[in-house]
Amino acid sequence: MQNLWINNFAKRAKHMESSVIRELLKTTNIPGVISFAGGYPAPEVFPVERIRQACEKVLTEAGDQALQYSMTEGYPPLREMICKRSARYGIKISPENVLITNGSQQALDLIGKLFIDPGDKLLVESPTYLGALQAWRVYGAEFVSVDTDEDGMVPESLASLMDVNPKLLYLLPNFQNPMGSTLSADRRQKILEIAHQYQVPIIEDDPYGQLRFDGEHIPPVVSYDANLRGNDNEDYQGNVIYLSTFSKILAPGFRLAWVIAPKEIIRKLVLAKQGTDLHTSTFSQMVVNEVCKDNFLDQHIPVIRDLYHKRRDLMMEMIDELFPAGVKYVRPKGGLFLWIKAPEEIDTQKIFPLAIDKKVAYVPGGPFHPNGGGQNTMRLNFSFASEDEIKAGIARLAEVLKTAMQ
Amino acid sequence: MQNLWINNFAKRAKHMESSVIRELLKTTNIPGVISFAGGYPAPEVFPVERIRQACEKVLTEAGDQALQYSMTEGYPPLREMICKRSARYGIKISPENVLITNGSQQALDLIGKLFIDPGDKLLVESPTYLGALQAWRVYGAEFVSVDTDEDGMVPESLASLMDVNPKLLYLLPNFQNPMGSTLSADRRQKILEIAHQYQVPIIEDDPYGQLRFDGEHIPPVVSYDANLRGNDNEDYQGNVIYLSTFSKILAPGFRLAWVIAPKEIIRKLVLAKQGTDLHTSTFSQMVVNEVCKDNFLDQHIPVIRDLYHKRRDLMMEMIDELFPAGVKYVRPKGGLFLWIKAPEEIDTQKIFPLAIDKKVAYVPGGPFHPNGGGQNTMRLNFSFASEDEIKAGIARLAEVLKTAMQ
Repeated sequence: MQNLWINNFAKRAKHMESSVIRELLKTTNIPGVISFAGGYPAPEVFPVERIRQACEKVLTEAGDQALQYSMTEGYPPLREMICKRSARYGIKISPENVLITNGSQQALDLIGKLFIDPGDKLLVESPTYLGALQAWRVYGAEFVSVDTDEDGMVPESLASLMDVNPKLLYLLPNFQNPMGSTLSADRRQKILEIAHQYQVPIIEDDPYGQLRFDGEHIPPVVSYDANLRGNDNEDYQGNVIYLSTFSKILAPGFRLAWVIAPKEIIRKLVLAKQGTDLHTSTFSQMVVNEVCKDNFLDQHIPVIRDLYHKRRDLMMEMIDELFPAGVKYVRPKGGLFLWIKAPEEIDTQKIFPLAIDKKVAYVPGGPFHPNGGGQNTMRLNFSFASEDEIKAGIARLAEVLKTAMQ
Repeated sequence: MQNLWINNFAKRAKHMESSVIRELLKTTNIPGVISFAGGYPAPEVFPVERIRQACEKVLTEAGDQALQYSMTEGYPPLREMICKRSARYGIKISPENVLITNGSQQALDLIGKLFIDPGDKLLVESPTYLGALQAWRVYGAEFVSVDTDEDGMVPESLASLMDVNPKLLYLLPNFQNPMGSTLSADRRQKILEIAHQYQVPIIEDDPYGQLRFDGEHIPPVVSYDANLRGNDNEDYQGNVIYLSTFSKILAPGFRLAWVIAPKEIIRKLVLAKQGTDLHTSTFSQMVVNEVCKDNFLDQHIPVIRDLYHKRRDLMMEMIDELFPAGVKYVRPKGGLFLWIKAPEEIDTQKIFPLAIDKKVAYVPGGPFHPNGGGQNTMRLNFSFASEDEIKAGIARLAEVLKTAMQ
């Protein structure tokens, strides 16, 4: 017997249908399946021992504080630390420009809660990060796709779309998820100018910026903005809301990320967060702050980078050797993902069961496209699988593609 | 120079104005102020050493897992443990009926996200928990006050309000925040019957249920519901969404709470949570699960209970001795709060600066009333302040009240 209200209620959650992708991904837990599907960091480079020492220290020296309620904005020393690290990249801010969130996903949700009314148009890359689509669809967002190529979003396409009166522009400038593309310095400048001209805020989502393998670091869009405004008084008043996270440079299990924005926006995000979950775990924040002391990330990030660099190279090498002609990929300059384009007639969602039969998994690319398309694409993760798994998994995937393309 | 979009945007966040109460509470950090304002547990009873050992064990034995992403539903052994403890109170459920959230505040937000459309009517006690009002106003909820007395919500009043076509009923049955009142067993039964009759879900928020000092434990409404339905197959299909938390029986710094609901509701909440923050900290969940092993809470909760019992008694004793005639309070049978009613002509918000001058703080009761009223009430917390502070603080507050009532 089921109550009526459950049925009625189930109908209401229209923006939250379990996605095809979520259903597919459940199958990746089958024993023996090599999965390139998730976006997991390599656990081999979690600094477990340092984290253990940090827990010990925090609990011994300040257990009462670490286990108590704390302020919605986040733990002040952690926000200070983020300001110091941001300054290296030209982002001159004070702790009042920083909010600590439960992972960047929460930042996306809070932005949706504050900004998005049903029917609002959001400008996005296509494909783009699935989690952002998921976070914002709930608030009734409509997505307008801006053209992209290997250098990221095309400014001319962006300019031509300004007549849709967009509420915001969502941008992943570095090693974009899922495409792996990187926005050129020139385009960062141009896109920012367009955003200023039309007074459209940019949400700059940058989880992987520090994981670059090839070429020189390009400063984030937010730092161009601060520079543009000759901002020496540390009171950032620009057009960019910048997101980054400890998930990829330390460990995702803490659920710790941060937002950088003008103070007034942070104040509003704080009110939204207060009603959403009061604050982020005091304990996690104090432990991560302890872990990051003495510039620990400066020695730790290169370790992650080297490992992922090797794995990316190996994956590309195996693909070059084994994939059938006609299957292409974009060479990512960093990050966690490789983006594969099969010939037009291949539907990566349809051939997914074949891949599971061969004990290999990926994410079909279609759902990353907010307005359809991309049926012939797939996303491969190279951070999580070991080198042996990458070799075996790519060989299996090559067989799947060959069978499908026969 | 400020950008236009920030101004425009600030106007939009109409449901998130900084509350008077938040502004008032900032003053409670002034050195020397004895604060009865917050809802903080006593740090003296945080089991710091056991938590330290749990961190050690989790990181040594399963660091890779504890620091990695994990499932949105929550850490399975923790959900198992919650099922086992719930069974003691007649709540027969399986882990699929349980979702782990970032504190109960997140559960309130997720419920709002799924249930509440602008203009929806919610039935609430008045006064009621401020955080629920804050969480749900954002979604455009309108609150309808049900009459309450010392035994909690009045069923006849509830029945008479069913013609407003309520979306849900929000109930704090035990040592209600802020009133300290407890819903009688008889009323639990009656309210549940009304909810069944009109097919209105009940949100039962029970953070303090295990912190009873006087009288016998009354089972939560959700357990009456399971019983009513003769539910032996562990597939709970009732009308209640039950919330509880580790914040008051262990430590709030972890931000760990749980929802118990029919499986279909949990599945929808999981989808909502996925878009909101992916999942709750793996590390926190594994540490708390470790801490709670071997029925640790069975020995720990009585320690908390004894301390708060003593502090409540002391606070009541001091009030009886020192407060001017005409100031009344409800004797709470447990929990963290004492609810004070001054004579009608006293406005506790207006006299707040006087209290701060005398270096004592409380929460004015007005804002707990969703539809106005209660200007002569205040909430006092007795869990956080030490016994010396309670003595000195109540003496100061007595002076404030005497001055105001002259």
